[in-house]
Amino acid sequence: MCGVLGYYSDVVAEAAYFAYLGLYAQQHRGQQSAGLAVSDGRRIRIKKGMGLVTQVLTNEALAKMNGRISIGHVRYSAAGEPHIANAQPLLGATRHGQIAIAHSGRLVNSAGLRRELQLNGAVFQSTTDSEIILNLIARQQCDSIEAAVVKAYSRLQGAFAVVLMTNDALIGFRDPSGIQPLCIGKLADTILLASESAAFDTIGAEFMREVRPGELVIIDAQGLRSKVINAQGRPAFCVFEYIYFARPDSYFAGKNVHLVRKQIGRRLAQEANLVADLVIPAPDSGTSAAMGFAEEAGIPFDFGLMKNRYVGRTFIQPTQALRQQGVRIKLNPVRALLAGKRVVLVDDSIVRGTTSAKTVEMVREAGASEVHLAVASPMFLHPCHYGIDIPSTDHLIAPERTKEEIRALLGADSLHYLSLEGLYAAVGAKSDQVCDACFSGRYAAGMYEATQDLDFLEDDND
Amino acid sequence: MCGVLGYYSDVVAEAAYFAYLGLYAQQHRGQQSAGLAVSDGRRIRIKKGMGLVTQVLTNEALAKMNGRISIGHVRYSAAGEPHIANAQPLLGATRHGQIAIAHSGRLVNSAGLRRELQLNGAVFQSTTDSEIILNLIARQQCDSIEAAVVKAYSRLQGAFAVVLMTNDALIGFRDPSGIQPLCIGKLADTILLASESAAFDTIGAEFMREVRPGELVIIDAQGLRSKVINAQGRPAFCVFEYIYFARPDSYFAGKNVHLVRKQIGRRLAQEANLVADLVIPAPDSGTSAAMGFAEEAGIPFDFGLMKNRYVGRTFIQPTQALRQQGVRIKLNPVRALLAGKRVVLVDDSIVRGTTSAKTVEMVREAGASEVHLAVASPMFLHPCHYGIDIPSTDHLIAPERTKEEIRALLGADSLHYLSLEGLYAAVGAKSDQVCDACFSGRYAAGMYEATQDLDFLEDDND
Amino acid sequence: MCGVLGYYSDVVAEAAYFAYLGLYAQQHRGQQSAGLAVSDGRRIRIKKGMGLVTQVLTNEALAKMNGRISIGHVRYSAAGEPHIANAQPLLGATRHGQIAIAHSGRLVNSAGLRRELQLNGAVFQSTTDSEIILNLIARQQCDSIEAAVVKAYSRLQGAFAVVLMTNDALIGFRDPSGIQPLCIGKLADTILLASESAAFDTIGAEFMREVRPGELVIIDAQGLRSKVINAQGRPAFCVFEYIYFARPDSYFAGKNVHLVRKQIGRRLAQEANLVADLVIPAPDSGTSAAMGFAEEAGIPFDFGLMKNRYVGRTFIQPTQALRQQGVRIKLNPVRALLAGKRVVLVDDSIVRGTTSAKTVEMVREAGASEVHLAVASPMFLHPCHYGIDIPSTDHLIAPERTKEEIRALLGADSLHYLSLEGLYAAVGAKSDQVCDACFSGRYAAGMYEATQDLDFLEDDND
Amino acid sequence: MCGVLGYYSDVVAEAAYFAYLGLYAQQHRGQQSAGLAVSDGRRIRIKKGMGLVTQVLTNEALAKMNGRISIGHVRYSAAGEPHIANAQPLLGATRHGQIAIAHSGRLVNSAGLRRELQLNGAVFQSTTDSEIILNLIARQQCDSIEAAVVKAYSRLQGAFAVVLMTNDALIGFRDPSGIQPLCIGKLADTILLASESAAFDTIGAEFMREVRPGELVIIDAQGLRSKVINAQGRPAFCVFEYIYFARPDSYFAGKNVHLVRKQIGRRLAQEANLVADLVIPAPDSGTSAAMGFAEEAGIPFDFGLMKNRYVGRTFIQPTQALRQQGVRIKLNPVRALLAGKRVVLVDDSIVRGTTSAKTVEMVREAGASEVHLAVASPMFLHPCHYGIDIPSTDHLIAPERTKEEIRALLGADSLHYLSLEGLYAAVGAKSDQVCDACFSGRYAAGMYEATQDLDFLEDDND
Repeated sequence: MCGVLGYYSDVVAEAAYFAYLGLYAQQHRGQQSAGLAVSDGRRIRIKKGMGLVTQVLTNEALAKMNGRISIGHVRYSAAGEPHIANAQPLLGATRHGQIAIAHSGRLVNSAGLRRELQLNGAVFQSTTDSEIILNLIARQQCDSIEAAVVKAYSRLQGAFAVVLMTNDALIGFRDPSGIQPLCIGKLADTILLASESAAFDTIGAEFMREVRPGELVIIDAQGLRSKVINAQGRPAFCVFEYIYFARPDSYFAGKNVHLVRKQIGRRLAQEANLVADLVIPAPDSGTSAAMGFAEEAGIPFDFGLMKNRYVGRTFIQPTQALRQQGVRIKLNPVRALLAGKRVVLVDDSIVRGTTSAKTVEMVREAGASEVHLAVASPMFLHPCHYGIDIPSTDHLIAPERTKEEIRALLGADSLHYLSLEGLYAAVGAKSDQVCDACFSGRYAAGMYEATQDLDFLEDDND
Repeated sequence: MCGVLGYYSDVVAEAAYFAYLGLYAQQHRGQQSAGLAVSDGRRIRIKKGMGLVTQVLTNEALAKMNGRISIGHVRYSAAGEPHIANAQPLLGATRHGQIAIAHSGRLVNSAGLRRELQLNGAVFQSTTDSEIILNLIARQQCDSIEAAVVKAYSRLQGAFAVVLMTNDALIGFRDPSGIQPLCIGKLADTILLASESAAFDTIGAEFMREVRPGELVIIDAQGLRSKVINAQGRPAFCVFEYIYFARPDSYFAGKNVHLVRKQIGRRLAQEANLVADLVIPAPDSGTSAAMGFAEEAGIPFDFGLMKNRYVGRTFIQPTQALRQQGVRIKLNPVRALLAGKRVVLVDDSIVRGTTSAKTVEMVREAGASEVHLAVASPMFLHPCHYGIDIPSTDHLIAPERTKEEIRALLGADSLHYLSLEGLYAAVGAKSDQVCDACFSGRYAAGMYEATQDLDFLEDDND
Repeated sequence: MCGVLGYYSDVVAEAAYFAYLGLYAQQHRGQQSAGLAVSDGRRIRIKKGMGLVTQVLTNEALAKMNGRISIGHVRYSAAGEPHIANAQPLLGATRHGQIAIAHSGRLVNSAGLRRELQLNGAVFQSTTDSEIILNLIARQQCDSIEAAVVKAYSRLQGAFAVVLMTNDALIGFRDPSGIQPLCIGKLADTILLASESAAFDTIGAEFMREVRPGELVIIDAQGLRSKVINAQGRPAFCVFEYIYFARPDSYFAGKNVHLVRKQIGRRLAQEANLVADLVIPAPDSGTSAAMGFAEEAGIPFDFGLMKNRYVGRTFIQPTQALRQQGVRIKLNPVRALLAGKRVVLVDDSIVRGTTSAKTVEMVREAGASEVHLAVASPMFLHPCHYGIDIPSTDHLIAPERTKEEIRALLGADSLHYLSLEGLYAAVGAKSDQVCDACFSGRYAAGMYEATQDLDFLEDDND
Repeated sequence: MCGVLGYYSDVVAEAAYFAYLGLYAQQHRGQQSAGLAVSDGRRIRIKKGMGLVTQVLTNEALAKMNGRISIGHVRYSAAGEPHIANAQPLLGATRHGQIAIAHSGRLVNSAGLRRELQLNGAVFQSTTDSEIILNLIARQQCDSIEAAVVKAYSRLQGAFAVVLMTNDALIGFRDPSGIQPLCIGKLADTILLASESAAFDTIGAEFMREVRPGELVIIDAQGLRSKVINAQGRPAFCVFEYIYFARPDSYFAGKNVHLVRKQIGRRLAQEANLVADLVIPAPDSGTSAAMGFAEEAGIPFDFGLMKNRYVGRTFIQPTQALRQQGVRIKLNPVRALLAGKRVVLVDDSIVRGTTSAKTVEMVREAGASEVHLAVASPMFLHPCHYGIDIPSTDHLIAPERTKEEIRALLGADSLHYLSLEGLYAAVGAKSDQVCDACFSGRYAAGMYEATQDLDFLEDDND
């Protein structure tokens, strides 16, 4: 889903350092690439690369990026080969001056827009939606950047949260349904934008409010101005942010994510109505829901699967002998805790099901007498068209199977999904206030159009 | 405290890969350097370097290390400059052939031994105790390596768990009091040694038993043989392994560490007898004890301080503006959870006290009406002479202060330490069965002798 | 001046490896960045980065770039900060499909073209002329890429040699005056393009001919086709290629560069008519001319200044003590050879004069009784508008000084420049067949127009 | 052959920087590893690693090494796997305090010494002779380091030039025959030691004299003292330093290496008495001799084979297609110069002959009508026991073949070696004043004893 950040200060300040921290706090939203653009008022400088924020944005790099306006981006490992050309922000020189841009989400009409722009002479150097938006803006013969952005916005369909900067202004906007999150923070005279409010906490800034669906905000020497460009979208905030993506310490619509997850767990406990000795989470994403489940069910909560804190990205090639051994690199079951117990294993969601099957088996091998799998979300039945990396229904475990078939496949004694109504209740929103397309098939902002491309660059969503 | 690993197979096998995994599972025991030695039966090869296991032991390096016997080491960032010369294992050619050696712990008579060996012609290329032990072994005019090790052992005082290999044998031994841990595992015909049993789980091996205090084990073509060299030491397993060092999924003396920590938490709850609304852990080391505390006290448990999972080692230099902001890189309090609550904050131990003070303040600023600090160990009053990096009593918060002074310094509403008796009860051991010198001042294996060195290499404990 | 390379084979072959070698042979033309684009017939992949060919294009990178068509580029450290965004080739998706492009030289009307393109909606992500050419091509509403290139070509003014590829064709073209070099080579059925013929030798290919001024060549499944687009330019090959840039083993207009340089040296000897004991070159660029000078003058030739073969790019910061010492990192005079001798020091050219002054002093300090400086080119009086990095006349030693003032400044006993007529004679060309603007001020392809930019990206010439 | 450096200043100075430059100037003597030890008067710090001086000794590393005494080393890629354990200097703590040591050359009795030391309890962590010497010194029960070194020296046989430092003194010594070079330089109050005098030129220091065969020099607060320990060796300076190893701008026995090589070339011309059109060197090592040859023979000298100045160490794996092409990465013949000519190709020496055969073929393919190979040294018939990496006679082309057979193998029209008498005359030394064992089989300092090792570390000579 990617993470974005914006920073605007009137005083010449250390924008790069604050933006760095804001990105760092959102590292969980993308580990493929990281980047930062900073303006000193005259010129925008940029630094981006493959890898984590701490790897790309070194002290040496930050020291060279003086300025008071900045945007940043962390990129999620989406479909398609990772490539440096797709790292963001994107920096371009246009008739409106230099513009740096970064986004989270996915345009559903990107293929058509690219085709149209290419036919009209555009050159694309990446496969990002950000470059499409930048080209649309560059082609508007308006006097102000604000007017150009508004015009370009009218062409965009899908889910998107965009931060954009010129030499002297920071702009943020969000799709008409507000599918992708974008928040506004404040630190003395500095204004910040971020995908998640936890980024503000890290910097020591205060959460002000979310950018509204269809709203554009501009921060410059005149302060913060707002303009609702499109008020027609039906609100549809991505419910998966609550379920999985967001940090537990972030807030959306005034609700703390950890507490929402606990509430989901409570509701799941009510619906599942299980008798058991122990509730354990699938580390780490099932923890909050498992705690809520345990509290509601009155069953003890504990950590039955311990995680190696040092599991990183680079890892050795498994040799034949290692494969036969079935090594447990990431998780280790605590036999002393599980042996002889009826265990409820709480996971946040089941997408492909491969990890869940292994986890259930691991708990059983550690001596659990029963393993009940409780899933803190409804059945994942439909691909996401707005940025979650689920290429097609082929890879989902649920669409073509009955619940009983899934249970058997995962090896659990029983399987329990949260109901859609339960989810709405836990999240505190009505069904027409969230995007739950992955569960319901109701796509709030259209579906991805696979127009034939003019070239062979791989498709790519952020 | 460092982590060690040994691997012996009769079949020519992928020793390097298994040893790699065993080290990786013990990464929490040391992040300063990592190393591996592997024998192909003819010759021992070695690879070591500064940094994490995954950084030093790359696929490329492992591919070059064929063999069926291996030892490995991860090093804790102890006092003194980190230096590649002190990375282990140490490989030396001696009258007994090639020997590779690695250890965890600290000799209390190292200064005297080094002085004696240097006066008799030895050359030291590191400041590790491993090199002292290796030189003692090399000087024994015995026929067998076993006999040489036994003779060298008689000169050693302090806390030590050693793994050592020749071209065709793996040897392990432990100090007479068994202060440092060393376990034996089994995987088909393969024998393993490791500081912690969790290393066996990762590889898919089975825990057999611990090496006994004063015991030497030899694994070679004849199988595993054992010899108790010194049965005079009073048993004194380091109680801090239970409190902080070990992985929660490891076992010592048949007891699971996580469950011992929960028991400590329960006992602490009984002793503290607090009235509160919420129990939260200081992440991550206070989690197990906090859960036990909450269960015993009947107070809800939750995660009031969220941790950024991506906090790594390299970090930017804090600039002036950042310092003034008081950024929260590692932890973020969940205001929605803490506001208006009487909070019990459970930490595993207080050594210097600087982190605890900040954590208490953070909880209070998030709106907690009361912050009670419950410490899951007794007062840390005495420096460790056996390997924990506490240079002197000067840096400890407890020795020169009353409990009330400490409470005031830390800014807590109340402060609660576990009693020594409570610790014994929770660990299930008598006072003369563990090393609790840091709390009691009773040193089971003598104190470090600061003999004047002949040279100026910095002192160094592993 | 940059170096370019093109490779086309009908058979699916190791294009990347051959292109790598062709670039490597042209490394002297640019050490700032290196890059390669390769097509597998379906899609173009690209790899580029800062540094040398061997640093950027690793075995690992090459192994991933299968294909039979390739272009490559090495970039000269021109004015302006080096930046990865300016590394070439540039890869873009356009209405004509994917296009990769790289060039050597400089457009004199780049500022105007960029301004025009930006006003019409273009987005520039670098400051290279290649991106301007690519945008011009992308905007041509032609059916064929060939037609689009021809149309775009008509807008270009200045010095340029361009290689360009689509998924199935390789295209090369050269400015109407042929200022920048571009040669065609052949290896069985494979066609190659390169700035210098020495690149063909390295690969084992044969030199066919040069691309003619104003000529476009297209290599695809139909073989090689040629089209002279602009026959109006007066021929004006950069004479500095003969004097300094090119490898001594390259050929232009059928003439070997080393032999042309020797001929320059001979002519200089005739003009200077010096009496001396020894002729020595300023390493390494003065060697060929010095040999010709010595042969013509009948004075012994020798290497009086020895060079450290390992002088690389990274070097320590000179400390105060080092500066006072006047260390001689690069060159060391051979006192046994120079002491008491009347020495002719032959240098290829004098631009700023700072290095020459130091070299003269070094020879004198080594005991030479006389030091005569013979320069194998005329006075460098005018900035280059076509790609040589001479920002302005301010940095040239010659414009504002008499020859006698320059001699005094350089500390030589006498100073001798080659005459323009001498240069023509040695090169075997008439004054209207070469570009000698730096000496004569006659610019064959116009002068750089400094139109006001719409943005603040630094200007940049390749 | 390796290169060593020593630096001593009484004033606290930038020893590391000067030592760095002295090593850098000797980079041609070894590219496998580089290292530096520096004393601040209290403690010796060390930095070493695999690779070039500029790669290992970064600015960052040098900045941490304050001090006024230093030794350094560059290591030649000798037989056996390169390994960091064999990088020098070696730093050890002994009864005499800290000692750092580095050497050039090879002990012929190393196997026996190691065996003896191991039997007496020594531990070897490398396979370098330096570690043997260090252990011998550490075992001397003397009061002074000087006395200990003198005693240890008496056990050494072979070729060696050693630099050694304690916290407050610099010591250098040379084998009794002076096979390995070691020179003394001076820069104000600073004393330097180096393998080659060119190192002094780079630093701006003055050459004083060579350390004499069998001489020990000590530099400390009392100044420079000298002691001839062994005056019994017959002088036998390695004649290959003149032929190949040393920089052309270095001096031995008052003679400049470049001029000696020219003299060798002159003598070779007299002996060969060839009729030809052109003399060309095999780049770069044949250049000086070829110039002398050409001058004496009255045949024009030129560079017929051009070298790519950027040839580095890392290189791509040759693929099948590349191998078939016979690419010319390093050298390129200048056809315009060679075509139709009778060419004398001058090489410094022929060891294995593989390179020479390729070079001869390259010249012939470029159109030379005749190719005469003139070798600026006698036939290489015997392995070197003193440090040149020639493992056995099996790899030499000369021992088992007649001159005519060699000529045929190399494909030359005629083959000419320098006579031994010619070599003596050119070098200006009698046959009993140089080590010419590789040509004559007369080993001045014994032959290598292959005593059976106690362990399996590979043998290694520096």
